[in-house]
Amino acid sequence: MSKLLVIGCGGVAGVAIAKCCQNSDVFTELCIASRTKSKCDAVKEKLQPTTSTVITTAQVDADSKEQLVQLIKAYQPDAVLNVALPYQDLTIMDACLECKVDYIDTANYEPENIDDPAWRAVYDKRCKEEGFSAYFDYSWQWAYKEKFEQAGIMALLGTGFDPGVTSVFSAYALKHYFDEIETIDILDCNGGDHGYPFATNFNPEINLREVSAPGSYWENGHWVEIPAMAIKREYDFPEVGMKDMYLLHHEEIESLAKNIPGVKRIRFFMTFGQSYLTHMKCLENVGMLSTKPINYEGKEIVPIQFLKALLPDPASLGPRTVGKTNIGCIFTGTKDGKKKTIYIYNVCDHQECYKEVGSQAISYTTGVPAMIGTALVITKQWQGKGVFNVEEFDPDPYMDMLNKFGLPWVVDENPATVE
Amino acid sequence: MSKLLVIGCGGVAGVAIAKCCQNSDVFTELCIASRTKSKCDAVKEKLQPTTSTVITTAQVDADSKEQLVQLIKAYQPDAVLNVALPYQDLTIMDACLECKVDYIDTANYEPENIDDPAWRAVYDKRCKEEGFSAYFDYSWQWAYKEKFEQAGIMALLGTGFDPGVTSVFSAYALKHYFDEIETIDILDCNGGDHGYPFATNFNPEINLREVSAPGSYWENGHWVEIPAMAIKREYDFPEVGMKDMYLLHHEEIESLAKNIPGVKRIRFFMTFGQSYLTHMKCLENVGMLSTKPINYEGKEIVPIQFLKALLPDPASLGPRTVGKTNIGCIFTGTKDGKKKTIYIYNVCDHQECYKEVGSQAISYTTGVPAMIGTALVITKQWQGKGVFNVEEFDPDPYMDMLNKFGLPWVVDENPATVE
Repeated sequence: MSKLLVIGCGGVAGVAIAKCCQNSDVFTELCIASRTKSKCDAVKEKLQPTTSTVITTAQVDADSKEQLVQLIKAYQPDAVLNVALPYQDLTIMDACLECKVDYIDTANYEPENIDDPAWRAVYDKRCKEEGFSAYFDYSWQWAYKEKFEQAGIMALLGTGFDPGVTSVFSAYALKHYFDEIETIDILDCNGGDHGYPFATNFNPEINLREVSAPGSYWENGHWVEIPAMAIKREYDFPEVGMKDMYLLHHEEIESLAKNIPGVKRIRFFMTFGQSYLTHMKCLENVGMLSTKPINYEGKEIVPIQFLKALLPDPASLGPRTVGKTNIGCIFTGTKDGKKKTIYIYNVCDHQECYKEVGSQAISYTTGVPAMIGTALVITKQWQGKGVFNVEEFDPDPYMDMLNKFGLPWVVDENPATVE
Repeated sequence: MSKLLVIGCGGVAGVAIAKCCQNSDVFTELCIASRTKSKCDAVKEKLQPTTSTVITTAQVDADSKEQLVQLIKAYQPDAVLNVALPYQDLTIMDACLECKVDYIDTANYEPENIDDPAWRAVYDKRCKEEGFSAYFDYSWQWAYKEKFEQAGIMALLGTGFDPGVTSVFSAYALKHYFDEIETIDILDCNGGDHGYPFATNFNPEINLREVSAPGSYWENGHWVEIPAMAIKREYDFPEVGMKDMYLLHHEEIESLAKNIPGVKRIRFFMTFGQSYLTHMKCLENVGMLSTKPINYEGKEIVPIQFLKALLPDPASLGPRTVGKTNIGCIFTGTKDGKKKTIYIYNVCDHQECYKEVGSQAISYTTGVPAMIGTALVITKQWQGKGVFNVEEFDPDPYMDMLNKFGLPWVVDENPATVE
């Protein structure tokens, strides 16, 4: 018997909820809550006939701690799964603290307005201290560690694919394949094609921000920062083929650098097609990616928001996207005194995901691990007091569930490496 | 003794007026009128100390025939030079008819809203009859021929560079170099660099429309239409170098096809850099070139108008543009039974134009011929009753004035031709 409160009702939430409903032994009751209750009702209507999980719905403004506390007190869940916007992580954590309920999410906190002066003052100071300027980071949520310990509850951060599965792959590699891991290269390849000359797979603002932020990687105990898109490599991805990929900062590097003892280098690469990058560059050149409002005929308009209104709705891409994703990690290190290299990855097919849950692989690969992490917290296979990243727990039950719930993985013990 | 009324006070008007002031023997008095009188006053203030031409200014809405008639009756000019927007050609012609005053312009009429249903109905019908779908055309103004004849006045259409000088080059070639012209290739090369990744040299909407409209050329007595930018050639332009150029429809083809007897083919090519075209394509792909308003947060916004607000003001390009333009025509034909080919062209330096009149070569090459055509009408070196294009008159005095007023030309009797 368990009760889960799910906050958020977008693409990832839809997959996570559908997967909870496939796992009714663990998830006996769940409540879907978001700003727009009708969206929650629609999900309930679609899934309830297929599952013995008892689904209810509620309206909540996830920016309001008071509303969240009220809802948690009324529903009395065993855990809260946050699949709302990353802007709302801290409010939801505050509400969980007040109600002493475990917290799970898939993406690290970032402020809605990165130019907000109060936020920037703190952030810029910290960046300066760490010699580091990328936008994404865990420090805001790690700061809740003591409070969660004192409340006797746990927060499980970043149980999506990357971060999430990639970190579990790392813990699994360390447990079963290495005495010591020297390098980790995380490769995120989307070989999908939606047929539009240009569209973004999720919120365009976050998508575009990722490409224009400086890249960084971890090496020999410190961060190395590079200009946006300055390091490019080619890789021949199993089941997808040869793709260009670029080094980006990504949040799991921050936690893996802390949690994988002795690791010397961690890098993250994501594939982007030339056409996507050309569109981005042209849009940037004319000022369309700016987050600074301009006055247009008496109205303040943020160019990137206006662009978002012109682009295809990311939710509309699902039915038309074909091809596969391949996300995984290449590890080098030593075992019994011998050097070795392995590559653990998952391949996911956009159309098969769409047939199963009505979302393409980008949402699917995040929503499935969200369910898995939540199941491990609810069943107390993973437990603790404080704030945790996924690689801090035993990877084996998580890896088993990936195979069982649609994200089977492969270990290649003789992969090509990345220069 | 003469009086000229100039309607319009933008970049081209500024050059045309400055050039009138350099030719005070012909232009003894002129009045500058536009919607914003302060702009006219600023031009007057700058030029009056340099010239014996007596300059006055007035406010007028060129969309209002009534206001135009009132102004013409008050000022009593010998001619009206229209250097306002092409949207206003017909209103100004109507006012000239009512007042029986000669009319001169540099660009053919087009409606402000090409999607206006009333306009489209007439236009589409005509296009269908002529098997032709490009946007620019002279038919609207040629329809005034009889009315101008009956009023005993003349309209001189299109005395800019292209149309304008290119047509005079054609008349000159026919008069002095050929018994019969077989082909005309008009080449418009802008080798200027403003240093921005993307900007347009004049109103972006008109600039962008030109590139996205179908191309067409005249061959063997009929129009051949091609998809936008479908025909590309390279040419090594004197004083500029090798450039890519694309076949476009252009209005002087329409009149030259009528006025150059026996001509078999007329084409127009304009140079565009790859970066310009890539930006255009990307902006088109995301919908930023659309002229159809979208509802954005309760406000109707036309994407291309919003883009215009983001791009550098074309007027700001003058001081930073370096390099040269090269515009001219390659003629093939026969003289005394022998085949021959000649190339007549002008090269104009952006920075030299800016030093002389405060505008770069794009405005300069249009403004100087506007003054020349007007001078020939006012001095009655060119006279007639009806509506005329420049190639219908003796080219010699016009060609002399080009040399004298800043647009010297070259005849190359052994040029490379265009495939």
